[in-house]
Amino acid sequence: MILDRVQSPDDVKKLDPADLPRLAEEIRGFMVEHVAETGGHLAPSLGVVDLVIAMCRVFDFPKDRVIFDVGHQSYAYKILTGRRDAFSTLRRLDGISGFPKREESVYDAFDTGHSSTSLSAALGLAVARDLKGEDYKIISVIGDGALTGGMAYEAMNNAGNRRENLIVILNDNQMSISRNVGAMAKHLAKARTAPKYGRRKRSVKRLLRRTSGGAKVLSGLRRVRDSLKNLMVRGMLFEEMGFTYMGPVDGHDIRELEQYLSYCCNVDGPVMLHVLTKKGKGYPFAEAEPDKFHGIAAFDPATGRLRQEKREATFSGVFGDSLTELAKEDPRVVAITAAMPDGTGLRAFAKTFPDRFFDVGIAESHAVTYGAGLAANGMKPCVAVYSSFLQRGVDQVFHDVCLQNLPVVFAVDRAGVVGEDGETHQGIYDISLLRAFPHMTLLAPSTETELRMMLKYAFSLNAPCVLRYPKGEVSRWDASFVHRPLDEGGEPVREGERVLLLPLGIMMEASLEAADLLKEKGYSVGVFSPRFVKPLDEKNLSALAERYDYFVTVEDHVLEGGFGSAVEEFAARTGAAVSVVALGYNVGMIPQGKRSQLMEMHGLDAAGIARRVEELLKNSTNNEKKT
Amino acid sequence: MILDRVQSPDDVKKLDPADLPRLAEEIRGFMVEHVAETGGHLAPSLGVVDLVIAMCRVFDFPKDRVIFDVGHQSYAYKILTGRRDAFSTLRRLDGISGFPKREESVYDAFDTGHSSTSLSAALGLAVARDLKGEDYKIISVIGDGALTGGMAYEAMNNAGNRRENLIVILNDNQMSISRNVGAMAKHLAKARTAPKYGRRKRSVKRLLRRTSGGAKVLSGLRRVRDSLKNLMVRGMLFEEMGFTYMGPVDGHDIRELEQYLSYCCNVDGPVMLHVLTKKGKGYPFAEAEPDKFHGIAAFDPATGRLRQEKREATFSGVFGDSLTELAKEDPRVVAITAAMPDGTGLRAFAKTFPDRFFDVGIAESHAVTYGAGLAANGMKPCVAVYSSFLQRGVDQVFHDVCLQNLPVVFAVDRAGVVGEDGETHQGIYDISLLRAFPHMTLLAPSTETELRMMLKYAFSLNAPCVLRYPKGEVSRWDASFVHRPLDEGGEPVREGERVLLLPLGIMMEASLEAADLLKEKGYSVGVFSPRFVKPLDEKNLSALAERYDYFVTVEDHVLEGGFGSAVEEFAARTGAAVSVVALGYNVGMIPQGKRSQLMEMHGLDAAGIARRVEELLKNSTNNEKKT
Repeated sequence: MILDRVQSPDDVKKLDPADLPRLAEEIRGFMVEHVAETGGHLAPSLGVVDLVIAMCRVFDFPKDRVIFDVGHQSYAYKILTGRRDAFSTLRRLDGISGFPKREESVYDAFDTGHSSTSLSAALGLAVARDLKGEDYKIISVIGDGALTGGMAYEAMNNAGNRRENLIVILNDNQMSISRNVGAMAKHLAKARTAPKYGRRKRSVKRLLRRTSGGAKVLSGLRRVRDSLKNLMVRGMLFEEMGFTYMGPVDGHDIRELEQYLSYCCNVDGPVMLHVLTKKGKGYPFAEAEPDKFHGIAAFDPATGRLRQEKREATFSGVFGDSLTELAKEDPRVVAITAAMPDGTGLRAFAKTFPDRFFDVGIAESHAVTYGAGLAANGMKPCVAVYSSFLQRGVDQVFHDVCLQNLPVVFAVDRAGVVGEDGETHQGIYDISLLRAFPHMTLLAPSTETELRMMLKYAFSLNAPCVLRYPKGEVSRWDASFVHRPLDEGGEPVREGERVLLLPLGIMMEASLEAADLLKEKGYSVGVFSPRFVKPLDEKNLSALAERYDYFVTVEDHVLEGGFGSAVEEFAARTGAAVSVVALGYNVGMIPQGKRSQLMEMHGLDAAGIARRVEELLKNSTNNEKKT
Repeated sequence: MILDRVQSPDDVKKLDPADLPRLAEEIRGFMVEHVAETGGHLAPSLGVVDLVIAMCRVFDFPKDRVIFDVGHQSYAYKILTGRRDAFSTLRRLDGISGFPKREESVYDAFDTGHSSTSLSAALGLAVARDLKGEDYKIISVIGDGALTGGMAYEAMNNAGNRRENLIVILNDNQMSISRNVGAMAKHLAKARTAPKYGRRKRSVKRLLRRTSGGAKVLSGLRRVRDSLKNLMVRGMLFEEMGFTYMGPVDGHDIRELEQYLSYCCNVDGPVMLHVLTKKGKGYPFAEAEPDKFHGIAAFDPATGRLRQEKREATFSGVFGDSLTELAKEDPRVVAITAAMPDGTGLRAFAKTFPDRFFDVGIAESHAVTYGAGLAANGMKPCVAVYSSFLQRGVDQVFHDVCLQNLPVVFAVDRAGVVGEDGETHQGIYDISLLRAFPHMTLLAPSTETELRMMLKYAFSLNAPCVLRYPKGEVSRWDASFVHRPLDEGGEPVREGERVLLLPLGIMMEASLEAADLLKEKGYSVGVFSPRFVKPLDEKNLSALAERYDYFVTVEDHVLEGGFGSAVEEFAARTGAAVSVVALGYNVGMIPQGKRSQLMEMHGLDAAGIARRVEELLKNSTNNEKKT
């Protein structure tokens, strides 16, 4: 194995160029073998193995600094920068991250996870370098999908104007997470099909010189000479933004990559190298189904099949199904996603209603305001988005949707801890972020039945509404439970004494189990399903405050500003004679790990909840008991 | 007066074209006269009077729909669409808004206020129109400054790909709020200086035909014919994004504008008309100082002088001065603004340290992550930004700054109600939005001394830190007060009994007055300056909870998730024997009005605070008194 001899970029530099394709192959095999166990972003990382090898040979890491945009394509880089032995712990509790992390290695220059940040960060690094009078390269590796994010454009606008030395490698795999969309995609398609710049320019010049009077034309065109280049290679958009554009080059030809990367080092100002790669490269199953292997759970490397096929209904699946049903009844219902048609469960909707389905690319800010525009002209849009990515559209939710009280429904998927993707992706802030906004209704379903009824209710409100639900399978706690209508607010689930559990959404199942555990110990606690975070069901809570000593709120969310905080605000405002105990995440950052592990660590499993309630009851025997 | 005969766009259509320049002049005079009384965004609105007249003649409002990006240039449109008589109430409590408002008029198609939303919203309106099979024009009027906002690019990417009919009028006044910046500005500068498209194309073709062999060249260039056009007019960036580009045209020639707007109506797909206007047009003082007259307080129309010259130190001014001092001591201190060098008080810094000052244009998302990049490479950046605009960078604060615990200081100006700009600009959500983020420190100064000491402290933390302070003059409550160091947390200001006021930042002055009022009535209440929102000063608060029955928090912020909520969380978590009463905005939306009016309406003036405390004490005579 060549890979056995390689522990650092310096080792890569020492290899015979002839051995490099073999190294690439070994890295791919290593990656497939391990990700098959841990799960992870396989296809993006397979696509850039050759590029990473070439970068290790041309650049001087960690003195030179690279930022991988989004960061899920950084596996080969991790393997070649001292983290090969730790690779089996990828995405696991206390293991190495699936994204770049400064804390993890000096080779990681900036943490990423969300899309389109690398250009802004790289420009910051470059300007700081120049202010300090230091000398090294700053490189951003950004996918074509991430270029649809507005931040990338804001940064290009700034970088193109400032002229700091900065190398941007456009990793063009012709798709973002699924099919890429938008005008930028078309622009790149043109660039891909254009002949190479140098050759083209020469032939036009030759043609002009051969024609009598052509010299005159050449001279007439001199003032637009820069544009001639653009005209040829269609990289003009980037040139217009002030970048020197090179490419496109074959992203799997290590020798060519090395050559072009060296050219980049000699360009003054910001330069963009357009590299064509194949997502999933080298692993046939991933090449055939790059979407499936974008972010994948554990699988059998021999067959490419998931080890654990999904058996139960997921929130995403139920949502997509339910939205499609609602759309059949109401032609005003339309759906918007920001590059996540599969993740959000909208694939079936897209097939059934292609004209009413909009994938706007990685562009959450636009997605929200586009939804507001549709709503302002009579549609009933549903924006389906992961909780952590909706953070990109917070102002738009406030300014364009809530202030105007427009009927946009937000299907906020991956709300709560998401697990292995770690702190950048945990969806544990949405309540804090959205709760203060006017006209907002915030709901949390926990079962298939609840999700369906809440989605229908959301559309009936004719006002902004958020449904937050987690990754994974729906709960079944209400199999033999008859829900009362949502206009009655929350609903009683179990009667009890002294302590009333108020589990939000997905926390119901663990809370019911906790109530059972407590029952065994002789404590009879009540359970009430709040259903609403906003408006809070003050009527029922006021009545319940008369009957219980403690409200114990349970949420898959940070405590600061969350659901428990809302109940505390209510209790303080009304002077309710009840003590509120809030269970949730008492820290602002939750690392990677299995969802169940993380919840257990924070006392949000049944045992943890029961333990807290028991402590509460034991410590409060002096308190007066209500009847 | 021609204006007297004009109440609607139909009336404008009926006018003799020869009368239109006169109408424009009258509108400008009317606007200057009224804004001199009310204050407002005069210069932007003066710039587009001719354009608005032309639009009223070509389009069929309100059937056709226009969205003014940002919206502060909509005064002429308001005057010509039935709101002339109400114009004297502009920006006043219960008066008409300084921004478009659907609630206010059927002529307003979408509410704006923040920058760069109009393309997304217009595309939404257009797609909805087509889904419903309706037929009318959708127009967005967007300034060149707003084009630096990433959302605009996200929307162009989407619109250029979809091909709905959509008219974008690029109102190019060669500046955003102050001087425009970035690569886009350079691109537009090129477009401005390029000769008109038609003429240029003809002459090049003529040249080629005249040369023997030129026909061959022409034919050789056929496959890049579209690019020839781009090459000529330099509107190529927009063409590349899928827009048909026209212009630039003189934005003060109503006849030419009418002609080009008519052309736009006949283009299939999205079209961009590039219009050159002069900010402040027609009012010499505004033409000479468009920055000053961008958003201006009441002034004397004869002299252009502010009626009330600023006498006291403002928070913005003290901040800018203090940052400049700190930068002299520490070469790592750098400053970032998103197109607000004057508003944020950074003008002096920019002059003193031009290399360490960065105006990134209207691009708050980029501003934050750019700051994170600078911090990750050893700088100590300060991002100065209005509270309501920082909403655009919430995810970046979380993902790029807080998760990595990078030392970025946020000088959050205009925190609290801002007054006349109304609900889109009120800075009353920042605590809710930022409080749950890890590694964050949140401070609120109320005086010059506090702002200076807190800014210094912020840089000493080597971690993310927010200082929130309001628009306007600093308070002077601490003229004879000696502050204790910030590492001691909050600080006692006045001793009292039963009730302890906890006023955050600017609320100290009114709270001290309230304490005086209560003293006169025989109530002695304590006052403690919390200074920290996060981390909350739990040590001192725990001790104080032993001595007081009530904590009354006072904040210039919404109650949901705010400072009071943080204190309530603390009390609930620690079981502190104290009741928390939170004063602040109990609604999620505060309309326009004077800052003092709005605070009084919500009981946040001295009398309101005293009244609430008195009620509290009267209603709680049964409660056991602590010593």
